[in-house]
Amino acid sequence: MLSKDKADVTSSLAVGKGRGETLTVIKVGGKIVEEEATLRQLLDDFAAIDGHKVLVHGGGRSATKLAAQLGIESHMVNGRRITDAATLNVVTMVYGGLVNKNIVAGLQARGVNALGLTGADMDVIRSVKRPVKEVDYGFVGDVKEVDATLLADLIRKGVVPVMAPLTHDGQGNMLNTNADTIAGETAKALAALFDVTLVYCFEKKGVLRDEADDESVIPQITRAEFEQYVADGVIQGGMIPKLENSFEAINAGVSEVVITLASAINSPEGTRIKK
Amino acid sequence: MLSKDKADVTSSLAVGKGRGETLTVIKVGGKIVEEEATLRQLLDDFAAIDGHKVLVHGGGRSATKLAAQLGIESHMVNGRRITDAATLNVVTMVYGGLVNKNIVAGLQARGVNALGLTGADMDVIRSVKRPVKEVDYGFVGDVKEVDATLLADLIRKGVVPVMAPLTHDGQGNMLNTNADTIAGETAKALAALFDVTLVYCFEKKGVLRDEADDESVIPQITRAEFEQYVADGVIQGGMIPKLENSFEAINAGVSEVVITLASAINSPEGTRIKK
Repeated sequence: MLSKDKADVTSSLAVGKGRGETLTVIKVGGKIVEEEATLRQLLDDFAAIDGHKVLVHGGGRSATKLAAQLGIESHMVNGRRITDAATLNVVTMVYGGLVNKNIVAGLQARGVNALGLTGADMDVIRSVKRPVKEVDYGFVGDVKEVDATLLADLIRKGVVPVMAPLTHDGQGNMLNTNADTIAGETAKALAALFDVTLVYCFEKKGVLRDEADDESVIPQITRAEFEQYVADGVIQGGMIPKLENSFEAINAGVSEVVITLASAINSPEGTRIKK
Repeated sequence: MLSKDKADVTSSLAVGKGRGETLTVIKVGGKIVEEEATLRQLLDDFAAIDGHKVLVHGGGRSATKLAAQLGIESHMVNGRRITDAATLNVVTMVYGGLVNKNIVAGLQARGVNALGLTGADMDVIRSVKRPVKEVDYGFVGDVKEVDATLLADLIRKGVVPVMAPLTHDGQGNMLNTNADTIAGETAKALAALFDVTLVYCFEKKGVLRDEADDESVIPQITRAEFEQYVADGVIQGGMIPKLENSFEAINAGVSEVVITLASAINSPEGTRIKK
């Protein structure tokens, strides 16, 4: 015990946290968690991560499939799902029920004491319904506040939160919320209490220098380098907001953001974003 | 503070518990939580209950409806749903997702810090798949073990568990589990730590002396009276296992079981079962 305490103190000095406890927030998209083989691999890899951890998942493909089976059309604008009342029921069932509970049961089988959560549970993430501008996204939530107090208590007791991309408005409505945002906001809130690494699993090995070359991973990016890459046209499209969010997380106290393959969450591969 | 502590001690002496904290476990069937008006009333009434509390809900009607929309036939034997793999997905979506999260969001809007749970979450309720005898119920779980440790911690912090009728087998599978059983087993496990009242909401005002007369509620039943009522044919059918379960809960330390209307959970009405 004494030597462990000593190690904790040393590491806490190194990272500047009061407690020096590490916590990894892993965000995986729907594709990984909706196919049995990739889900099984992910759960094995996730179970092997040392220290405290949180899993944030998507589930869009299953939602689209269930909606189609129910005769509900899926409309996407800028990659975001237009969420009418019927679609909100679909995503609540799929994200909060099917996908979340299958992950939780799968982790329990691996000795990980998982707890499935939406933002409504324990009022962990409260959102506001996105204001209607050019597009009416419907029941889509923009995160307003994360309350990490009870979450941190549970994490310290060995519980591993598994978070579905759903929040609530505090007035009785569930809201569909982007999983990257859930992961980023949760990581930021927990960064006040833990030494947090945020891992965005991606369909490529990391941020690529050359989109046509899957091996051209940029191993590390600082803010200044990012701005240069954007100015040079090396980084473009959907990767720009992903990296903007990553730097925002870093500025809010997250120690490191990693963009990598889901199959590489236990390896030093991928792109690392630091201050 | 002192006078409150004193009151606690007095009540703990009265009920023979170490802490004297009261906890009410309310079980409501699908019918109540699946219709907007009755759900709203239930949530108002539940929010008004003093002390610690747990809500256990069903959702069978919504599951049957979704299954039908998906072309999955619902088969019931002795009031229990035969749960094949497709049906397991349906109940996981409906009970764990749609119904559970709508209740959680509704309670949050009423200032109740609800946390939606299945038995897989924090490994709260572990089951075994029901052995195949005359009937193969499929993915249906018989409760093996309730771990109330983390649940009790959360309850003491003001969290209100909202439990869906789903458990897991510890090997990665969710299992469909009767909501009455979830309520009874949870009440028994928590009875070691709290002064527990278990309330089964029912479509009648209580246990009736005359099935044709809705007003003929038996206000209180002891074990001896129950056996006499059964011998006399006054109590029969599905009420017998419900009362057997109630006495089992009482024998396991639950202070009182109440069978009543959902609209009467804050009134002294209904049938009270005592040792």
